Amino acid sequence: MLHQDRLFPADPTSLAIAQRLYAGVKDLPILSPHGHTEASWFSDNRPFPDPATLLIQPDHYVFRMLYSQGIPLESLGIGQNPIVNPRDVWRIFARHYYLFRGTPTQLWLNYAFQELFDLKISLSEETADAYYDAIEEKLATPEFLPRALFERFRIEVLATTNSPLDPLTHHRALRESGWHGNIIPTFRPDPVVDPDFDGFIHNVHRLGELTGENTSRWSGYLAALRKTRERFRQLGCTATDHGHPTPATADLSLETASALFEKVLSKSSTSMDREMFRAQMLTEMARMSLDDGLVMQIHPGSFRNHNEAIYRRFGRDMGADIPTPTDYVRNLQPLLQRVGNEKNLTIILFTLDESSYGRELAPLAGHYPCLKLGPAWWFYDSPEGMLRFREYTTETAGFYNTVGFNDDTRAFLSIPGRHDVARRVDCAYLAKLVADHRLEEDEAHDLAQELAYRLAKAAYKL
Amino acid sequence: MLHQDRLFPADPTSLAIAQRLYAGVKDLPILSPHGHTEASWFSDNRPFPDPATLLIQPDHYVFRMLYSQGIPLESLGIGQNPIVNPRDVWRIFARHYYLFRGTPTQLWLNYAFQELFDLKISLSEETADAYYDAIEEKLATPEFLPRALFERFRIEVLATTNSPLDPLTHHRALRESGWHGNIIPTFRPDPVVDPDFDGFIHNVHRLGELTGENTSRWSGYLAALRKTRERFRQLGCTATDHGHPTPATADLSLETASALFEKVLSKSSTSMDREMFRAQMLTEMARMSLDDGLVMQIHPGSFRNHNEAIYRRFGRDMGADIPTPTDYVRNLQPLLQRVGNEKNLTIILFTLDESSYGRELAPLAGHYPCLKLGPAWWFYDSPEGMLRFREYTTETAGFYNTVGFNDDTRAFLSIPGRHDVARRVDCAYLAKLVADHRLEEDEAHDLAQELAYRLAKAAYKL
Amino acid sequence: MLHQDRLFPADPTSLAIAQRLYAGVKDLPILSPHGHTEASWFSDNRPFPDPATLLIQPDHYVFRMLYSQGIPLESLGIGQNPIVNPRDVWRIFARHYYLFRGTPTQLWLNYAFQELFDLKISLSEETADAYYDAIEEKLATPEFLPRALFERFRIEVLATTNSPLDPLTHHRALRESGWHGNIIPTFRPDPVVDPDFDGFIHNVHRLGELTGENTSRWSGYLAALRKTRERFRQLGCTATDHGHPTPATADLSLETASALFEKVLSKSSTSMDREMFRAQMLTEMARMSLDDGLVMQIHPGSFRNHNEAIYRRFGRDMGADIPTPTDYVRNLQPLLQRVGNEKNLTIILFTLDESSYGRELAPLAGHYPCLKLGPAWWFYDSPEGMLRFREYTTETAGFYNTVGFNDDTRAFLSIPGRHDVARRVDCAYLAKLVADHRLEEDEAHDLAQELAYRLAKAAYKL
Repeated sequence: MLHQDRLFPADPTSLAIAQRLYAGVKDLPILSPHGHTEASWFSDNRPFPDPATLLIQPDHYVFRMLYSQGIPLESLGIGQNPIVNPRDVWRIFARHYYLFRGTPTQLWLNYAFQELFDLKISLSEETADAYYDAIEEKLATPEFLPRALFERFRIEVLATTNSPLDPLTHHRALRESGWHGNIIPTFRPDPVVDPDFDGFIHNVHRLGELTGENTSRWSGYLAALRKTRERFRQLGCTATDHGHPTPATADLSLETASALFEKVLSKSSTSMDREMFRAQMLTEMARMSLDDGLVMQIHPGSFRNHNEAIYRRFGRDMGADIPTPTDYVRNLQPLLQRVGNEKNLTIILFTLDESSYGRELAPLAGHYPCLKLGPAWWFYDSPEGMLRFREYTTETAGFYNTVGFNDDTRAFLSIPGRHDVARRVDCAYLAKLVADHRLEEDEAHDLAQELAYRLAKAAYKL
Repeated sequence: MLHQDRLFPADPTSLAIAQRLYAGVKDLPILSPHGHTEASWFSDNRPFPDPATLLIQPDHYVFRMLYSQGIPLESLGIGQNPIVNPRDVWRIFARHYYLFRGTPTQLWLNYAFQELFDLKISLSEETADAYYDAIEEKLATPEFLPRALFERFRIEVLATTNSPLDPLTHHRALRESGWHGNIIPTFRPDPVVDPDFDGFIHNVHRLGELTGENTSRWSGYLAALRKTRERFRQLGCTATDHGHPTPATADLSLETASALFEKVLSKSSTSMDREMFRAQMLTEMARMSLDDGLVMQIHPGSFRNHNEAIYRRFGRDMGADIPTPTDYVRNLQPLLQRVGNEKNLTIILFTLDESSYGRELAPLAGHYPCLKLGPAWWFYDSPEGMLRFREYTTETAGFYNTVGFNDDTRAFLSIPGRHDVARRVDCAYLAKLVADHRLEEDEAHDLAQELAYRLAKAAYKL
Repeated sequence: MLHQDRLFPADPTSLAIAQRLYAGVKDLPILSPHGHTEASWFSDNRPFPDPATLLIQPDHYVFRMLYSQGIPLESLGIGQNPIVNPRDVWRIFARHYYLFRGTPTQLWLNYAFQELFDLKISLSEETADAYYDAIEEKLATPEFLPRALFERFRIEVLATTNSPLDPLTHHRALRESGWHGNIIPTFRPDPVVDPDFDGFIHNVHRLGELTGENTSRWSGYLAALRKTRERFRQLGCTATDHGHPTPATADLSLETASALFEKVLSKSSTSMDREMFRAQMLTEMARMSLDDGLVMQIHPGSFRNHNEAIYRRFGRDMGADIPTPTDYVRNLQPLLQRVGNEKNLTIILFTLDESSYGRELAPLAGHYPCLKLGPAWWFYDSPEGMLRFREYTTETAGFYNTVGFNDDTRAFLSIPGRHDVARRVDCAYLAKLVADHRLEEDEAHDLAQELAYRLAKAAYKL
């Protein structure tokens, strides 16, 4: 199913260059500095469940496409824990696998099917049961336990994403287990800094309990956040992550910020108050990063839970988050006025609005010392998406204001396939620059290593 | 003039794949589910007039380019019926034919010149009269009567676009004529649902007369629309079309909608009232589609009649409509909350804002069961436009949330050339995916058929 | 360092076409109708200073990239006149030259290094001093005096950019010198028409002194502008240039415009007043262009001096100008209603928002007789940027609504390298159209000449 030259250019000259570049990076260790796997999988090290629960239920790329073609989410086991009839779910998926033609999902899944499960014939209605049986059988073997796969995947560092309220029990257990796998948390404070987050007021109260700070006051709240960041740092955390609806930032006076905090803790805040509070908190987080060295990631621009009926029935992250136009230039200015010229601060920007690559993100990152560009994200974590990312950003921001690849996934088995796609696309892009003589081939070899490994290691302090 | 491999990739591997894919689709029948030809041409079956009146006067792609280079519209016969000196117009056009280098207009016209009129030397000042004579002579022959061309073009279905006030006399005459050509109307209610449409209030009154409903009341107005949709359906109509300035939708209460209707029928409405009314009417139309099964097309985003002097002198559709930024995510939400999860409803979205392809349209269509993406439209009905459409939408929405090609033209003679360009570009795109091993060639053959024929047949219920 | 086929496609068929097209244009004279060199360099004809002052200090593309990677502007000699330790600056630059991989800056610099200074090994930490010595030595020779380089570069016309307050002493001196080099001013009225420009009120007063008009009154102010335009025209000026934050235009009544003028001259104006005044002034300038024939250039969309700390310390043009989303359709309408249908007026539009190419600029320029499209600008003056410009505009606006290349630089030594990149990319684009049979090769040869030379000559009346 997988051709050895997949994603490389067809022209023989460029193809040969891409093959040579890829040979130098294909076996590099994987750095996964941003993702959504669970530390408990590795601390418990229990077998993964059936194929449908492993590969369909947690993967919104998979079930959103099926849903868009009229397949009810219920029939895919969404909302069931565990899935009642996993083989039925698998058969539905297999029958509709042709829907994924031309999508990265097919590339990732075919990689796992062939490279992990030794399957050689394409998935379809006819092969559905054979697939199910083969995968189920393998998952019961010791070679497919989470830690064994982690090692087989050659993962050097795997970052999870965690709420400030997370006790990080599993991360601690992993540290104490003696297993050498390096699994670190990422500090994602949205539940306690976004007043629109479900349970925000309760979460802030709980943050106080966990830290022994009075989080009903601005100063205590900030102190609690600082303590929690330190708790994360002690378990290897090197980065924070912020999933705000917009990249709005603010730089309010102490008095104003303090009053705004009390307002959002009351029930009287307006949506503008809440947006302003998120804006202020990005700047507060940047200030704390200056002190404690945590790298800051900003992931803005998603209109979450666009389909309210689906949200009411199934909750968050059900494939109904839609990108929106995003203005970085005006929104980030308050934060950048405060800390933009700090060269010891790293803020990594992501986007769901590709029109900002060339117009805003590359010009910003090509000027401000603190800014770097995260890789093509979410809907753009794909061959064409990655290619556009390079084509739109490199000429203004260069390669060294970018930070390598993020797999950003909770589909653990897709991690090697995702990194393989990224490495191939970067090699294809570099091969194009070599083929039309914009780069020397030795420069391209060096850059291929940077993009596959070294830039992520440096930017995320791994 | 036409190379057999035009629009195919130059690389020999990819070229050979594209040739094979195209061989499988080039002779498929044409489905034209969205266009602006006149049923009367086929019911009357009279010869087309002279070359200028046939090829220049009705084609805004042609005369807008000439006008942009300083050629007065008067000298092109615009506004004359019939054109006073068609040969003079043709000579001006021929002298400036080089202006169309690199445009799809040249591809379409060269196709018609060579394939229909057997002309082998390029059009230029030198060949102007020879072209004129050859075309004029052919148009007088029985082989160039409208019905003969319809058959020669292998058109399986041709949809026209019609006002609810159109008696559809010619569609009925065609049905009764015994001729087998399938020409169906499309229900385009803009004249009676857009309060900014010329004569709106009069049109609503006239709608009442035609249907015997009291269209000065909301309930009677809706009933009149339902009756008219049914009248269209009886003549083969399968789709509606909505050309609003924005994709704004609303979901008002009965009382509010009813009051708003009375306001827009009075002379006291504001532009916000009128926008809100259009918004509400999209949701009403979606509700009616749920009942009667008509597929809904939304064509938003054009700033109509941007050049007021041209509008005052020559009227609508004079090449002075300009695209604008278009927000689908917030605008469509009210309608989608109401009907977005209906899998028996089909809403086809078009855009004039390509930045929405990857950011909004593909994510929306890749989730909501009712949504599909119309092809690259108007200014993007072109090789680069179609290629971008695929590159920006396929990875998120796949192929099966798209609906094949629309020629969207009143230039009847350009229809085969337009479909040929679309088939070639889709084959070139698929060949690229095969050449870099993202698709198997057998999958690409199947997809080429889908894109050229089957997706349109299914989406438009033809 | 420079391969003879750089920037050409790798596919052998397309490559051969590109080579043939380029052979026809590579030695054409250079027309530089928009740039920022100094007339004094040529009137004085003194040697250029050291390598760092020549190649780093004036080039914001160079120092913004270095700054983004944490190198202080002070260490690059920014703000020093002359640079205190130019060799140290050069060494820092050389050590970080790898940062420019994949950027047009590297293409331009390598061209100058090899073609002008005969350097054959890449610049790096190791070769820094050898480079410095070689360049320094050459700069001291007569062959590297400004006039000698001008002739060696085969520049037919070089336009500078000048304030209405500029006495144009050096332009006059050049005219009187007997030297044949054609160096003309461009009328850039921002300092006297943009109320947000530093010293605006003083500038308007000074304009009155220079022209003998009462510029505290609207009529005197307009008369002063007309007189100044005429003074520029006498020294060869053929164009104006307008660097507004947005392309807003207005068409106010005489009374309103007059009152607004008095308001912006007072200290009581609001930011909306000032935007409205700039808007009105674009229309006034267009009216004057109708009378005196000066071609009008509009360069909107830059958020100037985004980094306030850098602005306070180093002033304008320090690499901290960031593009913003730009709406041409609504903003230009008032001006276009007034003069859009004039075929004897030329208004050249530029953009920093590439999403406007296909959506707004090509449709506007493909209709209005007065509009033409300037080349890919600033951050998009690059191979990918130029290619996108053609891909997004040609199908709607054709080639003949574009105006050839602008180098837009004050880095005089980069001019031949910049034009060479533009000619190569245009030939590569045309070769693609020939290779997939969208153009005949003879048409492409003709177009290559248009894009490299003739369109600029015609559009700018050179």
